[in-house]
Amino acid sequence: MQLIRFVVLVGFILTSMAEAADKPMTNVVFAVHGGAGVIERAKLTKEVEADVRASLHQALDEGYAILKRGGTSLDAVEAALRTMEDAPVFNAGRGAAFTRDKTIELDASIMSGENRRAGAVAAVSRIKNPISAARAVMDKSGHVLLVGGGAEKFAAEVGLEMKEPDYFKTPSRLRALEEKLRLERQKPADQKNASIVPNPNSDTPPAEDHRFGTVGAVAVDVNGTLAAGTSTGGITGKRAGRVGDSPIIGAGTYADNKTCAVSATGDGEYFIRTSCARTIAALIEYKGMSLTQASHAVLFDQIKPLGGEGGVIVLNTRGELAFTFTTEGMYRAYVTKDGEKRVMIYGDE
Amino acid sequence: MQLIRFVVLVGFILTSMAEAADKPMTNVVFAVHGGAGVIERAKLTKEVEADVRASLHQALDEGYAILKRGGTSLDAVEAALRTMEDAPVFNAGRGAAFTRDKTIELDASIMSGENRRAGAVAAVSRIKNPISAARAVMDKSGHVLLVGGGAEKFAAEVGLEMKEPDYFKTPSRLRALEEKLRLERQKPADQKNASIVPNPNSDTPPAEDHRFGTVGAVAVDVNGTLAAGTSTGGITGKRAGRVGDSPIIGAGTYADNKTCAVSATGDGEYFIRTSCARTIAALIEYKGMSLTQASHAVLFDQIKPLGGEGGVIVLNTRGELAFTFTTEGMYRAYVTKDGEKRVMIYGDE
Repeated sequence: MQLIRFVVLVGFILTSMAEAADKPMTNVVFAVHGGAGVIERAKLTKEVEADVRASLHQALDEGYAILKRGGTSLDAVEAALRTMEDAPVFNAGRGAAFTRDKTIELDASIMSGENRRAGAVAAVSRIKNPISAARAVMDKSGHVLLVGGGAEKFAAEVGLEMKEPDYFKTPSRLRALEEKLRLERQKPADQKNASIVPNPNSDTPPAEDHRFGTVGAVAVDVNGTLAAGTSTGGITGKRAGRVGDSPIIGAGTYADNKTCAVSATGDGEYFIRTSCARTIAALIEYKGMSLTQASHAVLFDQIKPLGGEGGVIVLNTRGELAFTFTTEGMYRAYVTKDGEKRVMIYGDE
Repeated sequence: MQLIRFVVLVGFILTSMAEAADKPMTNVVFAVHGGAGVIERAKLTKEVEADVRASLHQALDEGYAILKRGGTSLDAVEAALRTMEDAPVFNAGRGAAFTRDKTIELDASIMSGENRRAGAVAAVSRIKNPISAARAVMDKSGHVLLVGGGAEKFAAEVGLEMKEPDYFKTPSRLRALEEKLRLERQKPADQKNASIVPNPNSDTPPAEDHRFGTVGAVAVDVNGTLAAGTSTGGITGKRAGRVGDSPIIGAGTYADNKTCAVSATGDGEYFIRTSCARTIAALIEYKGMSLTQASHAVLFDQIKPLGGEGGVIVLNTRGELAFTFTTEGMYRAYVTKDGEKRVMIYGDE
């Protein structure tokens, strides 16, 4: 009896080693972003900058630790984005931007590069971590996208933590809304509608600068599987019910082991109209472009001419990374396959 | 004074003629679909078939008449889809499929090939014509996608016709839901979740056949501008809050004068995961494929292997049309640039 058990165990170990030999362990790579926008050094206080850098670092470390111990890219992306949703400094989960009705409506999505499995939620106001709800939609709902009350009901059913709407509200985001509404009231009547958000269907760029705080992550795990995820509160002063690119598979998030994992941030409407993330992957797959070439082509040749601004992080199974943004800065952090770790805000540091 | 007026008028006429010569009038082309699915001749009663053919004909004629008198492709698409939303025989607007909570939730989107302007609504239950709400989102909201109560509030604000939820409910769609729930109850406990909808994140095809009734249209107008639109009630027995590909720009709907206009129908989750409509356009733009090659590549090489079924209609500015479906049949009708008009249901007629 003891002998038989030993043989079975050895057999199991040998099988595992053979599988490992067939599929060599990939060097894991992980990257996160905390939004792209007008980040002027003079306006970013030392306190906020330190807070942003610390939060990026923490999210990076949590996701990377999962990958290093052999966890999946989906788990790494979900864990990092949960941390960023919990940090009030980012526009996702707690600390999200307000709608013009002074409510909070959150969007998130997640996707695996293996068979392009995906899940997303949009316009939810009571789920503590929308990225985990997106993951649950993928794993358990039989659907890809759930919105509003139906998404909240599902999240509660599968046991996710729910919060009262006030949990998500922070004084600084409320001030941002009030400032926006104040500026709107000062404008001539004929410009009032245009001031709420940049008009996504015109060719003129938005009149006002704004800072984004959407969060996102891309990862490749030891099995060479990509994942991408994005979570946001959307644009300050958005209409109730407005959904941007973050929960739209192919716009704000995309992952396919054949090409790349993408998480985007910016003027969501333009990213939807151009199917930003899917188009980057298409340029890599069908035109043979590099990650940097493809993301430049979409952001600078397609989105920017329409009037949109923003950025993307892109990763492939070889561990190549691209950070591309049309804006002055992008909150971002990454660990390369060589273990090099960096946290950056501006173009150069 | 008379002489000066005459000169100005002649000058105006000459300018108009020069512009017309620069940009020759395009022969208009229009096509609609009423969904793709398992349409067995034996099961489709003569009465329902006659109803479907008559409704397809009516929608086709309305859109085509607008194009023939020089109207825009957006107007043609919107008018045809309004007609199909009003016809209870299609799964859109009145006559839409029920959620498992016995409610109706409608999705729609519209897109112009000129600068890829777009609008969409999802999970709305009180807007008589969701396609017109999508159009209003594009033209007046400053956003691309509005969902749920926020979308309904916006639609009411811009003066669209609202209906009580009961308006959309029909006995035959309710019977379809009850039959689905009955089959679900009969299944062993471990298969119960799988029976609601095909699992969009597995590789196994859905266990049950189902018929789709999503409606869509593509058009090219005298100015050579493409437009596409799609409207649906989604899948019978879907969860509340579930959103499929129809309102997702790049998945169920896409239009770009550089490539094509696309409207899709089928297992929405798979069309989202593959960014179906955008990927068809990408294969045309980046790989030089024909409309038929590109739509075959996405439907048969990407969606079908994942377990999804459905169809697309595709049109370019030269008036070339493709109808591609993995299912037995697809309700469809078209007028070619030569004025040839056809209404078809099965593969061959």
